[in-house]
Amino acid sequence: MVEKLTPLSEDFNEWYTDIIQLAQLADYSPVKGTMVIRPYGYSIWEGIQKYLDKKFKETGHENAYFPLFIPQSFIQKEAEHVEGFSPELATVTHAGGKELEEPLIVRPTSETIINYMFSKWIKSHRDLPMLINQWANVVRWEMRTRLFLRTSEFLWQEGHTAHKTREEATDEALKMLDVYAEFAENAAAVSVIRGTKSNNERFAGAVCTYSIEAMMKDMKALQAGTSHELGQNFSKAFEIQYSDENNELKFPFQTSWGVSTRLIGMIIMAHGDDKGLNLPPKLAPIQVVIIPIIPKDDQKHIVMETVDKISNELNEKFRIKVDTRENLSPGFKFNEWEMKGVPLRVEVGPKDVENSSVVFSRRDGVGGKYNVEFSKVFDEVSSTLENIHEILLENSKNFREQNTFHVSTMQELIDKLNSTPGFVTAFWDENSQDEEDIKNQTKATLRCYVLGNNEAGESVNNPGTQGKLAIFSKAY
Amino acid sequence: MVEKLTPLSEDFNEWYTDIIQLAQLADYSPVKGTMVIRPYGYSIWEGIQKYLDKKFKETGHENAYFPLFIPQSFIQKEAEHVEGFSPELATVTHAGGKELEEPLIVRPTSETIINYMFSKWIKSHRDLPMLINQWANVVRWEMRTRLFLRTSEFLWQEGHTAHKTREEATDEALKMLDVYAEFAENAAAVSVIRGTKSNNERFAGAVCTYSIEAMMKDMKALQAGTSHELGQNFSKAFEIQYSDENNELKFPFQTSWGVSTRLIGMIIMAHGDDKGLNLPPKLAPIQVVIIPIIPKDDQKHIVMETVDKISNELNEKFRIKVDTRENLSPGFKFNEWEMKGVPLRVEVGPKDVENSSVVFSRRDGVGGKYNVEFSKVFDEVSSTLENIHEILLENSKNFREQNTFHVSTMQELIDKLNSTPGFVTAFWDENSQDEEDIKNQTKATLRCYVLGNNEAGESVNNPGTQGKLAIFSKAY
Repeated sequence: MVEKLTPLSEDFNEWYTDIIQLAQLADYSPVKGTMVIRPYGYSIWEGIQKYLDKKFKETGHENAYFPLFIPQSFIQKEAEHVEGFSPELATVTHAGGKELEEPLIVRPTSETIINYMFSKWIKSHRDLPMLINQWANVVRWEMRTRLFLRTSEFLWQEGHTAHKTREEATDEALKMLDVYAEFAENAAAVSVIRGTKSNNERFAGAVCTYSIEAMMKDMKALQAGTSHELGQNFSKAFEIQYSDENNELKFPFQTSWGVSTRLIGMIIMAHGDDKGLNLPPKLAPIQVVIIPIIPKDDQKHIVMETVDKISNELNEKFRIKVDTRENLSPGFKFNEWEMKGVPLRVEVGPKDVENSSVVFSRRDGVGGKYNVEFSKVFDEVSSTLENIHEILLENSKNFREQNTFHVSTMQELIDKLNSTPGFVTAFWDENSQDEEDIKNQTKATLRCYVLGNNEAGESVNNPGTQGKLAIFSKAY
Repeated sequence: MVEKLTPLSEDFNEWYTDIIQLAQLADYSPVKGTMVIRPYGYSIWEGIQKYLDKKFKETGHENAYFPLFIPQSFIQKEAEHVEGFSPELATVTHAGGKELEEPLIVRPTSETIINYMFSKWIKSHRDLPMLINQWANVVRWEMRTRLFLRTSEFLWQEGHTAHKTREEATDEALKMLDVYAEFAENAAAVSVIRGTKSNNERFAGAVCTYSIEAMMKDMKALQAGTSHELGQNFSKAFEIQYSDENNELKFPFQTSWGVSTRLIGMIIMAHGDDKGLNLPPKLAPIQVVIIPIIPKDDQKHIVMETVDKISNELNEKFRIKVDTRENLSPGFKFNEWEMKGVPLRVEVGPKDVENSSVVFSRRDGVGGKYNVEFSKVFDEVSSTLENIHEILLENSKNFREQNTFHVSTMQELIDKLNSTPGFVTAFWDENSQDEEDIKNQTKATLRCYVLGNNEAGESVNNPGTQGKLAIFSKAY
């Protein structure tokens, strides 16, 4: 049992796992590499699901559910796909008391089984586009695990789509990348960079992988979501064919895209501090905690009358909690809700009731403790939560910019990556071997080529040629 | 590919699987015994989840997520539990390219892993009650499968709770049974009987199992939800102990309860008819379908103007769909939406626009086709959907009552079960062997002892002794 939070500056990794324990987000499970998501952590995931599911539906996608088990032969149908996933597969060999004729793979991702079904459902151009999403658990057997960031089982959503043209598929992949970026910034209050992956970092089976990359408080990168153009790789492997307007058989172009419970890790590492978790208001399971301060028993009635009135009013629009536990001091409660990252605390004591006001205290510390008149509480909560979101997002952006450095030569790139935590940008001429060399010398990887950046410059790895703006960083 | 719906009266089983195909609720998967839930079927499940999740939270439960894989040794800790589930287990023996030291079981239910975690979380009486729910997939290897009703993998929720006293646990188990019954009647419009299971039919590891039982249109019973009192069986097996107010170590009393995607099967079989699915309005993904009727191209503008106006108005409160597909006749569309069970159809043609009215047509056929003035459409939709729900529920109740027969002797019980489809009630003196005999002679099982029925009478199986009112029936 962790008792006290390790300071962030002392040991970032310890700080991270301490918060998860102390804020009761998750727990280790008896099965190596897997985790239990506790109610408080799960309610953050529910907030993420609700936000994204609405966006997916608004952009025309429908949810469905495909089997957990995939025949081994399916995984082997797409050459790069099987190579990429083979080392991580978990295999069911026995079921119902018998050995199975063909072992079953516990899905590491569902491209293969979904595309098998697409081959049954897609017959005509009128069946396209097919826009499917699945919320599910997946299993990738990991040797080195880390709560929320890398576990053998995790929860995610995976979108799978099929389109008539390559252009439509490209648009879809980029549209969903935008949905993820919009979520990161407008819900999680984490500033992200949209990018394209290098060939080395591409999804196994994709022709192009896009990602959003965020900077954590230890200046490492976190890949927060990916969106893939699959070209016709899977439609050819699974013989998905439709007859077009001229009755000719065609293979559709496809995409897939996903985010996972890793987003909870991102939220912890992007906003947390030495007091604990620091939740963005739009995803906080509790946005406002109200703490009655009752020095003497006979003041209880008058304090609780005000607390009830305020909580009923706020309850209409906000997710609130009234902490009425009687055996705990206000100070203990303050610490606990700060650890749990509740964006705003409202204290109500006898003095406050007398003055027709309450005390606000923001999790981010801005403004210290200050009084708010009864009549203004509702509006003030609303604007304060908005302001907390804006400041979190701004801080996230500023922090990344302050810790991003541009270099002009290969040696500078290596030196900077080895000497200074953060992102390093450089113009780069796509080359897998050069990229591998950088990784071996610095442990940093090419996170992405920055999307929408049209600057070009002499590449650091192949002087004399033009390169694209790339970001290098150590990453989770 | 199914082309045409088999009539219900001709072959109920064919009718059932035809509907699932024709309404695109689900599809067979390439893995034996598993299914793909297609978007239309999944959206019914989403409605079920939304309704129940709200109730679970209102009754104080929190969602969490526990691992898919369970160590084999855990399953073996509770004697009855392992015996009940052993024949159905799927086992992972290899992962990450290696053979595992201890095989992992794919959860058939999560009592064991959750109670292992409870033993870490529950230390003091202040930690009780612990009220947890999980939405998840589970795997039970079935030999004879049936879409939605019995598949090797299915989706469900499982509640798991721990309490200080046996009374509290009993109250919880019954409270959640009531939540299920309320859902069945107020959301799914299916009348159910609350009951207690006999020892033969009890959950493996429980001291008492409650269920809700519904009658399907072929007069067979469907167990739609179960709630179990686990006593201290699991708390003792997993050494869950808390110190009570006097600092004495105690084992808590527990419950678990669940419903699954089988509820979709219930909805199909309780309300469907020879036109297809017939969805209860509260769970219908589309409550109202609006069909523009455009005999001539130059009438399109005027019809669509009205359609847009009405759909915008209805969209505020109802789940609606405007079917603007141009290459299909109105008749084709009518059949398709009837097959998909949409409760209410609204037609808008040029004549209707002229008369400032639209045409309503209920899926249940009540009232035939009738005109509704523009100004009354919103209110009329609201009251019509309510009325459709009421009639579905009433029909479900009447149908069960008309097909329930009471008998007074063992011979009558056997004869009735063999001669007439339906429920047969009798006073019964709990006796596993007698129950087994009935099953062998009639294929019917003791569905439940009726809860809240205080009648007592001479038992049919042990004349001279009093029995409790029991229901026998063939069942899914």
